[in-house]
Amino acid sequence: MGMKKIAGPNETPDSARLAGVELGGTKIVCGLARADGGLLERVQIDTQAPDLSLPRIREVLETFIARHGPFAALGIGTFGPVCLDRSAPGYGRLGPTPKIPWRGCDLSGFFGDLFSVPVVIDTDVNAAAMGEVKWGAAVGCDPVVYITVGTGIGGGVLAGGQPVHGLLHPELGHMHVPRAMGDTFRGSCPSHADCVEGMAAGSAIVERWGKRLDELPPGHPAYAQTAHYLGHLVTNAILTVSPEKIVLGGGVMDSGVLLPLIRRNVRLLLNGFIAVDPVERGIDKLIVSPGLGVNSGLLGAIALAQQA
Amino acid sequence: MGMKKIAGPNETPDSARLAGVELGGTKIVCGLARADGGLLERVQIDTQAPDLSLPRIREVLETFIARHGPFAALGIGTFGPVCLDRSAPGYGRLGPTPKIPWRGCDLSGFFGDLFSVPVVIDTDVNAAAMGEVKWGAAVGCDPVVYITVGTGIGGGVLAGGQPVHGLLHPELGHMHVPRAMGDTFRGSCPSHADCVEGMAAGSAIVERWGKRLDELPPGHPAYAQTAHYLGHLVTNAILTVSPEKIVLGGGVMDSGVLLPLIRRNVRLLLNGFIAVDPVERGIDKLIVSPGLGVNSGLLGAIALAQQA
Repeated sequence: MGMKKIAGPNETPDSARLAGVELGGTKIVCGLARADGGLLERVQIDTQAPDLSLPRIREVLETFIARHGPFAALGIGTFGPVCLDRSAPGYGRLGPTPKIPWRGCDLSGFFGDLFSVPVVIDTDVNAAAMGEVKWGAAVGCDPVVYITVGTGIGGGVLAGGQPVHGLLHPELGHMHVPRAMGDTFRGSCPSHADCVEGMAAGSAIVERWGKRLDELPPGHPAYAQTAHYLGHLVTNAILTVSPEKIVLGGGVMDSGVLLPLIRRNVRLLLNGFIAVDPVERGIDKLIVSPGLGVNSGLLGAIALAQQA
Repeated sequence: MGMKKIAGPNETPDSARLAGVELGGTKIVCGLARADGGLLERVQIDTQAPDLSLPRIREVLETFIARHGPFAALGIGTFGPVCLDRSAPGYGRLGPTPKIPWRGCDLSGFFGDLFSVPVVIDTDVNAAAMGEVKWGAAVGCDPVVYITVGTGIGGGVLAGGQPVHGLLHPELGHMHVPRAMGDTFRGSCPSHADCVEGMAAGSAIVERWGKRLDELPPGHPAYAQTAHYLGHLVTNAILTVSPEKIVLGGGVMDSGVLLPLIRRNVRLLLNGFIAVDPVERGIDKLIVSPGLGVNSGLLGAIALAQQA
């Protein structure tokens, strides 16, 4: 993007437009942006089975082209598990997701053939981390951890400005941490029962308390218990990758009540061990809400496209 | 290293020699190697206070120069906490380490002034991870996690071939994980009591059982309990950075009894969730002993020097 070029026959200055798709379990967000992250279009659709949703995404992207002309690259941030090994034949293929109809869905095959532009695929949370580094709350920071606490708990990690993946991709939400004192809930994760997701995700909260967190009164024990697990999760992430910024998004974080509780727990758990100013004096700036609000994932997908 | 140059007055082809220092809590290892990692010299000394140890290291390095001529760069892998932010005035300065006489010791200042060669400093475990990627068990892998289980538990992380640090540096060993069933030991970590280091490091094992692990008979509950905590630690590291290789070194691992127990626990804890061949069918190759044996740290320091 830094170099000015003479526009060739298939390349106009407009080709700096980038498209992104955030593929979530309940909704799909498609967007078109300028290279500076300025959104030109944003369309949200419900997630259905891939034979319904994929053609719908194509229609939306074709509408973008009809209105603004072609885009230079497409980034896709998807729920996982998804193969991100570019050298593997299964690159861009969804793994054993609990969203059964999507298992085995070949995102790279579908989108790669569609518009003759480079397609970059990563997890929704790695993408969100990219978006926050490019244009949000984590500009200039490295490493960065992005955690979303919604129906489930996802986590993305950037190091050296790049999304981290190898064996598969980060799945931070499924860490095991100590139980909260007196907590007897068995946990709702189908794979791990009482991992952090199984104890503190939105679905776990509803299963144990019968209500969403924002429907429970202030002072309800659900707040402290949820913050216990999320505080441990953030602490373990700090001890593993030493991030300069931890961004906490997702619907369960939205009320704003949890964030100060989590920060307090992280300081208590670290107990002076990571004796640096951002922990000791600046934790409000170390552990933050998304700078891009609900657009972290979409702008993250567009940041992926920019890498193409 | 890749380019052939004409040798200048202060630069002979021999300047491809690299020096490394592994600074540990009980011993210090100094070495000189060729650019391909072949060791020419290896000298081990006891760790004392810095006013005794630092001049001793200088003497050893001067001996190397006297015998082989100058070296091109010096890498230092040190115990932490240590400031690794090159833009900070405190770069290379030790933090609040339990090794009291070393607190505030300015490694960058001391070594930077000594030989007029570039000095690269990182943690001993990040260095060990570098060594294992260059010449050991993790060649071609990314990301990589190196964990040493000795008196304490340290962890290093590489992503994109580079050591990960930001806020500070990885301190994996201080994660909290669920307690083993019926385990009532309060934990020996001065900062966190029952973090993994406080429950499963060599010093914790001696405190709770009165003996080192290799002095306890086969089938002693210490093995299963230690493997419980280390299995959780490795599992959480996998869920955070998705490493293609996890290397487990250090004295507590030496007997070889723990490694298969840890691998088994990791598979039980992941429970099919990271559904990839290296976990499901190849865990013996995913979680391994150091390929460089006792020289991971020293050759890692030399790998750091090579980056200079």
